Amino acid sequence: MTQSCTLAIDAMGGDYGPSVTVPAAAAALGRHPSLTIILVGDGARLERQIESLDPPIRARLRIRSATQVVDMDESPSQALRFKRDSSMRVAIDLVRSGEADACVSAGNTGALMATARYRLKTLPGIDRPAICTTIPCRGGRFRMLDLGANVDCTAEHLFQFAVMGSVLVEAAGDSHHPRIGLLNLGEEEIKGNDQVKHAAQLLQESDLQYVGYVEGDRMFRNVADLVVCDGFTGNVALKSSEGVAAMISQYLRDEFRRNLLTRLAGLVAMPVLRALRRRLDHRQYNGASLLGLRGVVVKSHGSADAWAFEQAIETGFVEAVEAIPSRIDARLGEIFQAEPQQ
Amino acid sequence: MTQSCTLAIDAMGGDYGPSVTVPAAAAALGRHPSLTIILVGDGARLERQIESLDPPIRARLRIRSATQVVDMDESPSQALRFKRDSSMRVAIDLVRSGEADACVSAGNTGALMATARYRLKTLPGIDRPAICTTIPCRGGRFRMLDLGANVDCTAEHLFQFAVMGSVLVEAAGDSHHPRIGLLNLGEEEIKGNDQVKHAAQLLQESDLQYVGYVEGDRMFRNVADLVVCDGFTGNVALKSSEGVAAMISQYLRDEFRRNLLTRLAGLVAMPVLRALRRRLDHRQYNGASLLGLRGVVVKSHGSADAWAFEQAIETGFVEAVEAIPSRIDARLGEIFQAEPQQ
Repeated sequence: MTQSCTLAIDAMGGDYGPSVTVPAAAAALGRHPSLTIILVGDGARLERQIESLDPPIRARLRIRSATQVVDMDESPSQALRFKRDSSMRVAIDLVRSGEADACVSAGNTGALMATARYRLKTLPGIDRPAICTTIPCRGGRFRMLDLGANVDCTAEHLFQFAVMGSVLVEAAGDSHHPRIGLLNLGEEEIKGNDQVKHAAQLLQESDLQYVGYVEGDRMFRNVADLVVCDGFTGNVALKSSEGVAAMISQYLRDEFRRNLLTRLAGLVAMPVLRALRRRLDHRQYNGASLLGLRGVVVKSHGSADAWAFEQAIETGFVEAVEAIPSRIDARLGEIFQAEPQQ
Repeated sequence: MTQSCTLAIDAMGGDYGPSVTVPAAAAALGRHPSLTIILVGDGARLERQIESLDPPIRARLRIRSATQVVDMDESPSQALRFKRDSSMRVAIDLVRSGEADACVSAGNTGALMATARYRLKTLPGIDRPAICTTIPCRGGRFRMLDLGANVDCTAEHLFQFAVMGSVLVEAAGDSHHPRIGLLNLGEEEIKGNDQVKHAAQLLQESDLQYVGYVEGDRMFRNVADLVVCDGFTGNVALKSSEGVAAMISQYLRDEFRRNLLTRLAGLVAMPVLRALRRRLDHRQYNGASLLGLRGVVVKSHGSADAWAFEQAIETGFVEAVEAIPSRIDARLGEIFQAEPQQ
């Protein structure tokens, strides 16, 4: 990709702030010669932090001062009201004004979603933005949305999520005609709540490649490129999966540390365990997309290290270059033209 | 436990029928001298199957003929209408008539729930039965309900689930004063849908030990003895967890089979991998309880082998001996007397 692109980074967000965001930005600039990054936050501190960077990298780094930081436990409404000069909001406003093509933040998810929605607005035809992330599965990966932005969803919301998510899967090059599944507690048609059943009908009637209901265990068997659900269910499914993976890793460590013999076995098995750890490393999937907005906004895990945050920047870069919001807009236009839903 | 107990077993249910249920029944009889088992199903076939058993075991085995079997993909309403002499229904009716103290089946979950509800009825104060199972977590285990019987739940339903589940946890000896959590997408008070928020209020006002909202990942860190949720969310959470665990096991196998060197490492690490497999072996947790009925009904995984099915029988035995339905009934009585809810 040779297209030039400018990203705004909320440099103060997340658990570690500039000590993570600045090195990650530098690494991303090293990877993409066409990239420019605007670091938003405490100007003096950021200036000091970028001093030691190589001049060719520094040349594509700009700093925009913002005097406030949204706390990780601040409520969205408080952030909206009292943090008008936060690094998060200023970074989003750079997307709004067109100075930046995307914004990346490791800050408070609720505040990021609320601020992005308030400042950028949703695309026409989208009632609510949704959070979408990439999840590994056997022999591949899939995307899932919503992951917590929308607790209650109607069938129409779920349908909109499917449209937005499928554009993302296509643009990321994972599939030209993404297989879309609805997360449900069974695969038979009679299963599920009314919203899910009605969403299934909407998807069946559309030109999207709907593959039916997907159960929680089957989504890890590569049966769909996109799994659609309400934010409550999606959040619980994702976090349960993370919880089990962490528990198994812990078990594995415990078992190899049990005694001298198992420690020796652990040494012998080290390369295999490292390979497993790489495969399970959730950092590589860091960077959730806030879809449905008139601009690209990517959310990093708050606890991301520099390498993980770099992956979130990469997500923002790809979505900006691929102009995801315009593509979603165009796709919605096609769908509503083909079959007016309102 | 010296109390005598009679269990009715749907001998034809599950993927393997009598080839699994009969050896499992024999093993359970060997373990519990006070136990009697009634095998329900194809009389001639079951007679042949038990011929070779030791006489002291056989002496506590009875056979009850039933001419039909509920198919694994049959709808609950079809099973209710057309399978009045199914092994499942006859086994449930033995509980209804008092001939058996509990029923265990590896058959079709929907049909089992519908038949049990229709034939046994729910306890007074319980609107809907729920499915509860045991799940391993770091340093322990917890129980979760509902796992799929109730797609949509009100706050009152969730509260009833909490009462039923806490009685089960107490009776199983896991905790005298179970910590009860509500599954949610965040731990702050403002998070969640209306049902969950209202259920939190009901739990706070009760004398149950409510520990607050629990996120999907935190439930595997031993923060609650009982996690309460609607059946849609619970089913997705449980199956997602199973899917991830299966994927990681597969990864581990793949990595150890990669080449000669990793295969050798796998041999050296074998005892550790076996220990891990034992810890993750979901068969030990086989046997989900259908709570809220006027009788004990336990559902085994359809694909259970004899050892796994024996665990489900064990669950039924413990619940029968502990008289779980009466204890739930008594607990509800206390709660409604203390603070009339209607």
